[in-house]
Amino acid sequence: MKILVVGSVAFDDVSTPSGRREKLLGGAATYFALAASYFAAVGVVAVVGEDFTAAEESVFAKRGVDTRGLEHAKGKTFRWGGQYLDNLNEAKTDFTDLNVFENFEPRIPAEYKSAEFLFLANIHPVLQAQVRRGLSAVKLTGGDTMNYWIRTTSRELRETLRLVDILTINDTEAKMLAGESNLPRAAQKVLAMGPRALVIKHGEYGATIFFREGAFGLSRQPFRAPALPIEEVKDPTGAGDSFAGGFMGYIASQQEINREVIKRALFYGGVMGSFAVEQFGTERLQSLSREEIDARFQVFRELTHLESTTSD
Amino acid sequence: MKILVVGSVAFDDVSTPSGRREKLLGGAATYFALAASYFAAVGVVAVVGEDFTAAEESVFAKRGVDTRGLEHAKGKTFRWGGQYLDNLNEAKTDFTDLNVFENFEPRIPAEYKSAEFLFLANIHPVLQAQVRRGLSAVKLTGGDTMNYWIRTTSRELRETLRLVDILTINDTEAKMLAGESNLPRAAQKVLAMGPRALVIKHGEYGATIFFREGAFGLSRQPFRAPALPIEEVKDPTGAGDSFAGGFMGYIASQQEINREVIKRALFYGGVMGSFAVEQFGTERLQSLSREEIDARFQVFRELTHLESTTSD
Repeated sequence: MKILVVGSVAFDDVSTPSGRREKLLGGAATYFALAASYFAAVGVVAVVGEDFTAAEESVFAKRGVDTRGLEHAKGKTFRWGGQYLDNLNEAKTDFTDLNVFENFEPRIPAEYKSAEFLFLANIHPVLQAQVRRGLSAVKLTGGDTMNYWIRTTSRELRETLRLVDILTINDTEAKMLAGESNLPRAAQKVLAMGPRALVIKHGEYGATIFFREGAFGLSRQPFRAPALPIEEVKDPTGAGDSFAGGFMGYIASQQEINREVIKRALFYGGVMGSFAVEQFGTERLQSLSREEIDARFQVFRELTHLESTTSD
Repeated sequence: MKILVVGSVAFDDVSTPSGRREKLLGGAATYFALAASYFAAVGVVAVVGEDFTAAEESVFAKRGVDTRGLEHAKGKTFRWGGQYLDNLNEAKTDFTDLNVFENFEPRIPAEYKSAEFLFLANIHPVLQAQVRRGLSAVKLTGGDTMNYWIRTTSRELRETLRLVDILTINDTEAKMLAGESNLPRAAQKVLAMGPRALVIKHGEYGATIFFREGAFGLSRQPFRAPALPIEEVKDPTGAGDSFAGGFMGYIASQQEINREVIKRALFYGGVMGSFAVEQFGTERLQSLSREEIDARFQVFRELTHLESTTSD
């Protein structure tokens, strides 16, 4: 196994301008794992309840995702309900039932211990740090967090950030974490907390990666990848985790980590995020082909590059 | 003369986190003209009052901007006061004294009648339409507008949009004009109102150009240009007008209008916007060199292009 993701597997009830769906398979680890699975072998560590059936497990299996780290606990699976009726860029949470996720203690199967890439999805920073410390083969750690942890577990989060190589968060989170409203200055403050690189996700405007001086042997020069202008965003849930899956998955598929690889990874992140939102839940991420992914990569290139590779 | 801009020349009182300045030379036509002057010969049509002195006039003259269309009226120059203390992305207006601008009736000097490129900065849409109709040599018309005109002169604005080839507005304005919160769908609705192309300015995230099918002989495929992550935005005033000046100025400097030219123009727009905000008022735009501009163009390229032109 190449990449290990630790995070939530959930059932989501989602209302968007395109409709309403209940009990969609979701959760950060799910979106990440499916997106990354197109690039490298992925294993998932998460907890589910008794309502999680073979049908859901097969979604992972069909994409070759290793689910030996998926703990089946007594009780119900984490369930989240939210709506994007007024604003597709930000979910309004209707309810959060943590259920079995409330007492989640990540256990890493022995078969996962050789993973070289780790993604710590959005869970309690103390759990994130425990997982990282328990894995000695890891060469690169990616991580996510959210406003709730920034507000309530600031000290613990600071500890965890010292263990994370590339942090992927959104604009609001970066500004809150840094206590700074200017984005590039906020980025420098976050990098001073530990990460070698920081990916700030701008939603429909794409993402920017900022580097600590000398990180990966690179200059500090940032890089921006676009998001695709999409006329019908059916369900924005999981876009950020799909972005992280495409980004980390592509890096894990390469022989070395250099600036060119990281740039392309940021594009692949945008590509996987753009697919995720085209259908409800993980539907679009379940049945892609590498050809479709690379075709969209070319669309991203055409969208941003001065020289066309195709004729117009 | 190649480009003609019609709009406001003003004095601005501005407070930002970097400080406070009073009676800065400003106004949409000023920022546009200075930015465009690095690419092509520019003439300005605007009105100023008796408090507008030779010192201000020399700012235009030093950049070779033709001011024969600058009417000197009895009374005071348009004065605006605003602050960006809480939010650098949006001005909070302290006061607006229209003064001589209230009865502005654009008069086009005979020497300007050969202009092939016209930019209708943010003024009453009826005045915009009058100016356009009075100029028969114009090959390409750019235009701007704002929420106030969208709300209060919707019918007149629709008439004007039929005369505009490329409209440059921001996200909020595009969504309000279209009555549609999804940006690419809003873009299609605005294009259906007349313009052949629509540039939507995303502030610190750059800008996207959308095309009507077949416009300029091009496909509908949109293009995105970045904005530069800037650690100290001293004064955001005029960024959008400087963007428009760089964009239209570059187009006017080229032999033909094709997709490659429009893409580079969008980059030059971002470049001029990035310079504008580095100092208060028009200070930075007064003393650039084409070498500095092209060096920054390369920074924009490095920021977005997968293949580096420099070694890392």
